[in-house]
Amino acid sequence: MIDPGATLATLRERKPLVHSITNYVVMNETANAILALGALPVMAHAREEVQEMVALAGALVLNIGTLEESWIESMLLAGATANERGIPVVLDPVGAGATTYRTETAKRILDTVDVAVLRGNAGEVATLVGFEAEVRGVESIGAGGDPAELAREAAGALGLVASVTGAVDHVSDGERTLAISNGHALLASITGTGCMSTAVTGCFLAANDDLLAAAAEALVAFGVAGEDAAVGAKGPGSFHVALYDSLAALDPATLSGWAKVDG
Amino acid sequence: MIDPGATLATLRERKPLVHSITNYVVMNETANAILALGALPVMAHAREEVQEMVALAGALVLNIGTLEESWIESMLLAGATANERGIPVVLDPVGAGATTYRTETAKRILDTVDVAVLRGNAGEVATLVGFEAEVRGVESIGAGGDPAELAREAAGALGLVASVTGAVDHVSDGERTLAISNGHALLASITGTGCMSTAVTGCFLAANDDLLAAAAEALVAFGVAGEDAAVGAKGPGSFHVALYDSLAALDPATLSGWAKVDG
Amino acid sequence: MIDPGATLATLRERKPLVHSITNYVVMNETANAILALGALPVMAHAREEVQEMVALAGALVLNIGTLEESWIESMLLAGATANERGIPVVLDPVGAGATTYRTETAKRILDTVDVAVLRGNAGEVATLVGFEAEVRGVESIGAGGDPAELAREAAGALGLVASVTGAVDHVSDGERTLAISNGHALLASITGTGCMSTAVTGCFLAANDDLLAAAAEALVAFGVAGEDAAVGAKGPGSFHVALYDSLAALDPATLSGWAKVDG
Repeated sequence: MIDPGATLATLRERKPLVHSITNYVVMNETANAILALGALPVMAHAREEVQEMVALAGALVLNIGTLEESWIESMLLAGATANERGIPVVLDPVGAGATTYRTETAKRILDTVDVAVLRGNAGEVATLVGFEAEVRGVESIGAGGDPAELAREAAGALGLVASVTGAVDHVSDGERTLAISNGHALLASITGTGCMSTAVTGCFLAANDDLLAAAAEALVAFGVAGEDAAVGAKGPGSFHVALYDSLAALDPATLSGWAKVDG
Repeated sequence: MIDPGATLATLRERKPLVHSITNYVVMNETANAILALGALPVMAHAREEVQEMVALAGALVLNIGTLEESWIESMLLAGATANERGIPVVLDPVGAGATTYRTETAKRILDTVDVAVLRGNAGEVATLVGFEAEVRGVESIGAGGDPAELAREAAGALGLVASVTGAVDHVSDGERTLAISNGHALLASITGTGCMSTAVTGCFLAANDDLLAAAAEALVAFGVAGEDAAVGAKGPGSFHVALYDSLAALDPATLSGWAKVDG
Repeated sequence: MIDPGATLATLRERKPLVHSITNYVVMNETANAILALGALPVMAHAREEVQEMVALAGALVLNIGTLEESWIESMLLAGATANERGIPVVLDPVGAGATTYRTETAKRILDTVDVAVLRGNAGEVATLVGFEAEVRGVESIGAGGDPAELAREAAGALGLVASVTGAVDHVSDGERTLAISNGHALLASITGTGCMSTAVTGCFLAANDDLLAAAAEALVAFGVAGEDAAVGAKGPGSFHVALYDSLAALDPATLSGWAKVDG
């Protein structure tokens, strides 16, 4: 069922447009990750154009990392159009649990938009399903309980695919839960890798209709790129640079062989 | 007539301030490109200060890559002041053709501000002169006809220098059209290189009053830097890093010798 | 008194949250510098959440590099909360002296918020204490007089620690003035290194209650990382990448031995 190489091949053939309404910190970096993987990124947040832009896209990425009211309105507008047209939406609830505004905004989007995949860290996802969690800024400090169980519960409670990333990632549709062990500790040493994994999830959703598989495949691909980039990296700066090289160098013919997926 | 090395020498001696009102995705990257080339970048978008800031500048860069109303107002204000003071303006109509908002905004700026150089891809420029074009997000998918003819027509119709970039770039003032073959395919592998070429055009406009020559020289310089950066690059990440090194290493004494210009 | 290694050890143990309300150009870069050093960055600018966010933080960084009214309001709100809770505030008056709006905004923040450290270049700081200065865009072109004297005067007049960076940095509380000679010329070749030094100052303020010492230690640490990053750099691009590697590689056990501090 999980064949990240096949989906990557489809992605590179289709070159879908991935429309992001995302935070200022990672705009360049997620655009470059999308481009390196083989899709076309576009950032657009004005209410005047988000509906027209998303209609051209293969997926919509919503990310609340640097919020304000006019951006939320545009996220809701774009989300509604995406839903009408059957374009998959991935939500990154950056910092949910750290402030009421972020928690409430993430819930407002989840209540209003039919989100295909929720991609967050354990603290953010736990916050959104009412579990105990500690989020400091945009970092998950602690979220009680088992992350696989958290993913399963979040998927069931919210009616979507929950993609909970961490040292091991867990992706669940409420019935089936997959554990993905690809990745590298250096991914936590640079800002925006969570946001990049969300953007990569958007790319895979544009190439595979099976939401659970697409979400898991995206994390395999991003994790394998991280493993490759870590070879020879001297620290976060050189790792960051190599990550784009590694995303571009992912080989559809061999990628699935590197997957570490259980469940 | 085209002597990019001489203009680069002037630029580095003058160190002009280049004021950009540009998109969130490329602010850091275009500032670093301007700095690496030898000019001084500044980003300022508040209506309270754009007129005062542009008055200090040698060129104004307007880029509509991530639009909203208050930014457009500031672009028009800054453009008016630049015109009054004889400061050259370069416009990058990012995504014109993809949404009505972008197309209309680019036209509004062209109608209101005396733009010296319009720097865009074929799809964007074709859209603005009413030719057939397909723009997906911010990528030119197709623009019917010959790009040299497109540049010539756009220059004549809009009364400016049209700088249409692609595998081969075409720069025209409506009478004379130059084809520039410098550059490298890796430039298309990272986001914002179009915006960087616009920023570099702003730098050259601040050092050469001959608009057609300045626009062409900028693309030669940027293209030569791209060619140099591609040597040894392992992918988009390492190419991106090397591009700044190569812009800084451009040598006024030898640059003109690398130019590939016809017309 | 100055022991940057010891403060860095404390910083890495505490991993404080550093809340920045900063400019678009350097959001990613300063977040990565904070993370590489060993603290946790968060960017949040909405009035709805800045008070709640800063309450979680060990330091607040205010940077006026790309201004607009709603951001200023949020800076004042966050600053008031930081003051109430005894959280140190560092202000970077980017471009003060270049436009009236920037000068007035920096003064407004200084009048309203109890700023612990003012970190700027000579032109910016001179502007804020009424000395002769020339600021072009965000660059200090000239500031009359001795920078050590400028730092001492600014500290006394504004009632804070003044951190005036340049070829040699000067940090003063009005009584004691320290001169820091660490650093490298390549730091001036990329945009945002001033903003990074401000962010690093925020990190050190979150780990050392002695404001003068913390401000000086931050510049030592950032300067030593710059010296290390310059080894083998081919230009601004490769230097920029190495700078993050070098910040992460700073060794608390040896850092103080590299300090070049007089006074």
